[in-house]
Amino acid sequence: MNISALQKVRYNYSPKLPECLSGSVEDIAVQTGALTEAISDREELRGIFKNTYGKPLVTFVKGKNDKIKRELKVGVILSGGQAPGGHNVIAGLFDGLKKGNDASTLYGFLGGPSGLTDNKTMVLTKEIIDEYRNTGGFDIIGSGRTKIETPQQFADSLETAKKLNLDAVVVIGGDDSNTNAALLAEYFLANGSSTQVIGCPKTIDGDLKNEHIETSFGFDTACKTYSELIGNLCRDTNSAKKYWHFIKLMGRAASHIALECAFQTQPNICLISEEVEANSTSLDKIVDQICKSIVHRASCGDNFGIVLIPEGLVEFIPEIKKLIEELNDTIAAEEQSFAAVSNYIDQLYWLSSRIPESSYRIMQTLPPEIGQQFLMDRDPHGNVQVSRIETEKLLVGMVEKKLSSLKEKKIYTGKFSYQTHFFGYEGRCAFPSNFDADYCYSLGYSAFVLIASGLTGYLSSVKNLTSVASEWIAGGVPLTMMMNLEQRHGSKKPVIKKALVELNGAPFKTFAKKRDTWSQKTCFVFPGAIQYFGPLEVCDMPTITLRLEHEK
Amino acid sequence: MNISALQKVRYNYSPKLPECLSGSVEDIAVQTGALTEAISDREELRGIFKNTYGKPLVTFVKGKNDKIKRELKVGVILSGGQAPGGHNVIAGLFDGLKKGNDASTLYGFLGGPSGLTDNKTMVLTKEIIDEYRNTGGFDIIGSGRTKIETPQQFADSLETAKKLNLDAVVVIGGDDSNTNAALLAEYFLANGSSTQVIGCPKTIDGDLKNEHIETSFGFDTACKTYSELIGNLCRDTNSAKKYWHFIKLMGRAASHIALECAFQTQPNICLISEEVEANSTSLDKIVDQICKSIVHRASCGDNFGIVLIPEGLVEFIPEIKKLIEELNDTIAAEEQSFAAVSNYIDQLYWLSSRIPESSYRIMQTLPPEIGQQFLMDRDPHGNVQVSRIETEKLLVGMVEKKLSSLKEKKIYTGKFSYQTHFFGYEGRCAFPSNFDADYCYSLGYSAFVLIASGLTGYLSSVKNLTSVASEWIAGGVPLTMMMNLEQRHGSKKPVIKKALVELNGAPFKTFAKKRDTWSQKTCFVFPGAIQYFGPLEVCDMPTITLRLEHEK
Repeated sequence: MNISALQKVRYNYSPKLPECLSGSVEDIAVQTGALTEAISDREELRGIFKNTYGKPLVTFVKGKNDKIKRELKVGVILSGGQAPGGHNVIAGLFDGLKKGNDASTLYGFLGGPSGLTDNKTMVLTKEIIDEYRNTGGFDIIGSGRTKIETPQQFADSLETAKKLNLDAVVVIGGDDSNTNAALLAEYFLANGSSTQVIGCPKTIDGDLKNEHIETSFGFDTACKTYSELIGNLCRDTNSAKKYWHFIKLMGRAASHIALECAFQTQPNICLISEEVEANSTSLDKIVDQICKSIVHRASCGDNFGIVLIPEGLVEFIPEIKKLIEELNDTIAAEEQSFAAVSNYIDQLYWLSSRIPESSYRIMQTLPPEIGQQFLMDRDPHGNVQVSRIETEKLLVGMVEKKLSSLKEKKIYTGKFSYQTHFFGYEGRCAFPSNFDADYCYSLGYSAFVLIASGLTGYLSSVKNLTSVASEWIAGGVPLTMMMNLEQRHGSKKPVIKKALVELNGAPFKTFAKKRDTWSQKTCFVFPGAIQYFGPLEVCDMPTITLRLEHEK
Repeated sequence: MNISALQKVRYNYSPKLPECLSGSVEDIAVQTGALTEAISDREELRGIFKNTYGKPLVTFVKGKNDKIKRELKVGVILSGGQAPGGHNVIAGLFDGLKKGNDASTLYGFLGGPSGLTDNKTMVLTKEIIDEYRNTGGFDIIGSGRTKIETPQQFADSLETAKKLNLDAVVVIGGDDSNTNAALLAEYFLANGSSTQVIGCPKTIDGDLKNEHIETSFGFDTACKTYSELIGNLCRDTNSAKKYWHFIKLMGRAASHIALECAFQTQPNICLISEEVEANSTSLDKIVDQICKSIVHRASCGDNFGIVLIPEGLVEFIPEIKKLIEELNDTIAAEEQSFAAVSNYIDQLYWLSSRIPESSYRIMQTLPPEIGQQFLMDRDPHGNVQVSRIETEKLLVGMVEKKLSSLKEKKIYTGKFSYQTHFFGYEGRCAFPSNFDADYCYSLGYSAFVLIASGLTGYLSSVKNLTSVASEWIAGGVPLTMMMNLEQRHGSKKPVIKKALVELNGAPFKTFAKKRDTWSQKTCFVFPGAIQYFGPLEVCDMPTITLRLEHEK
């Protein structure tokens, strides 16, 4: 195997641990806090989680722990999209297990949750783990998007747990996967199994967080990777002074990534989906907002700028959301008839008598190459593939049109040239930043302590993240504490509540104070590439979002 | 101004200099080598460059230099597209000038060569220079693409040189800009001016190099930035195992960037424009080559991979090159008639009676959204804007079609999902790698020594770049030595010859030996982000291309 110079030296990086975890494992005691409640729908959730509801918060402290040296058999799952640091969660879990008892075994379930239902595993040895320390990716055991939902899948999972004689399963995943972990913990207990289930908070989107989970892992590295690129484009356009760069950033539901990248780079415009939804901002209004900045800057001779766009934006613009729903319904109802229409003009005509006039008018205003994306590439359920819609090009097309009308009215006298970008996959598998490497290793190590202490239905938790790692506070949060009921496929389901950008939270409010200046002037910041060595202020700082949320 | 943590610490980086430049300026002597000749068309070039042709190579060595402490007035120009390190060339030039004589003045010409013709300047002070040390971008004085070509422009340049009483002009640019520098040097001498002209070899494309210029600056940083992203995508797809990523990389004429990124990341496919041209490979053959890898990998269960595509590829595919020329001619001839045709189907019909059948058939096989790009967005000269053609999507579209026919024949049984990317602007303004920071600073410092030594028509040269910086060899190469005559706009013009990928050179031959393995197996390498601190093998290594070309 050909390994890069960076990978070789990163193998030797020792992730930093909270002080309470850094000594002998026998000295890690579990301090139990108050019993907990779900965020809402408490009675229903108590009924669903008869055996696991409302457990206490736990914190690790210095003290005696008799149980921790037992021999354990644990299986670990990587679930869903990649996030930098996943390998370090596994390394921390492995090192903890082996420190506890060298005879303990860590199984990796292959290819995500289906590895558990299908009993596809590999034993993770020191040799294997050492090849993946402090590296990006989920390739050590692979990931997958299977959800454990059907009675058969739960039964199969139990079967695997029995066959392998598992003390615990660790699920490394986002909100959905950890909801699954909670259900699995309950199912095991309800069916007399002693296999515990522990979750770890993963997602670059940053939307799995709450009072006790300060951030999900991977958010730090992904945002820094995107910010490197955005900063480079800022510097490029500040040099060439001729392009507006429209940059779409990964993040379907929440705009945390766009917001963090805005703090890191200070672009002229950063759209926030949550604000668009809260204000029912129309597409036209968004285009106006962008054009206002372009026109003002052109009047100062600055025909260049940077626009950040969260990936999921179109789904939050009321009339586009409605259009997408109508297209899904209309085309599904007459699938064959629609399939027989081959070109875009005829498709528009086909739609004209089938969707409401307001929506038809929107279709007509869309640039044709984008309108086509609403109609082509439908997913297996017949729905519009929103992730394939090039929102950045949609906005550019509409901005161009608006600017030419402003030009006719002599309101705009500049020159508009553009480039579009989408940054997403580039950031999911970067080498984890020191922050993510440390945080993930600590999460994995904490997962071990939760298991060794006999707990189930907990999310591994490491807090106080804006302090130095030695001062971090490790423990566990009961999964049911983060849950509520939400409508899914026609019925109410228990789910972990997604953390969206809060419009009255410190990060958004800080952004809102600065954005008018940014939209008019050139305030770009150039963060550069993630550094793994060097001064601490360069290589060990957490995200600005985290600092704004937690620093006093 | 809000400055990133990295930028702050990079201000304190001291670029490494070759030993002969690192002591007192009075100890830098100029060693003169043999007289030189142009690479071809020698008689004609001797006629064009009556005063500057055939000067000797010069090398800086330890020794006495009487002239070096003169007070000098120098103007510097950033010309063309940005490349990481431009600010360090200026910093090296500035520091050299001030070490020679503190009363010396450095003017920056604003916005590229037009700053010289229009006499738009700023005086560069220590305070200004200090804000730009070791940073990316050309924003210190801006860049531009104006070419000094007309008699008026030459006269204006001379006028400015006289007004500012300039001892020298330094042109930081690529092959075209340095051809300009050579013409300017000759013009000044021919018109009795003592203003010298010195060039510095810039371009991320890496196509300004030869026996004496080992690499152009910016190539190192740009390739490492792209390789970071490609490596991240390699890791991502090796984890998710479900996408083929088609990645277009900047580089219109030469494929050096794609080749270097291939060495850094070992993708499944890397297309090389020079090879496509040499073999007259058709689009269909290229698609076949990609499909062969996809089909083979699918048969091993690997429905994922990485394809690298040089930006200029379409111009090297014979039938597409012909098609583009025919479209340019045909549409230019009947501009108004074509403009009256509004949709793609009608445009195709319009073309059907006007372009040869072979070309018309190619238009028909292009995916419509790509075919449209050949017809829309024409440049001011009425030509197809090749840089707007999404070659990555063109290839994906044709690969999809071919795979579905292979599926019908049961030759292909896999599942093809894809993502497309274009990496270009992201890499042009990154913080220069230590290599580029050192190399650029040395080039700027050498430019000062060339000026102080009274030389004109030279390109600043720093060689032996695969050794440690102290062993680098600094000097100057006569610009006429790198020239030949080429057909430009209907007449023969003196130009610096572009260095394309040599199919019998060490880099391409090394690649050719490995690519079959890469196309079938997963051999990805993950270089990670550029590091500015840490072990030397991580933060100070030059490109693999350079090592293959020069290491014994």
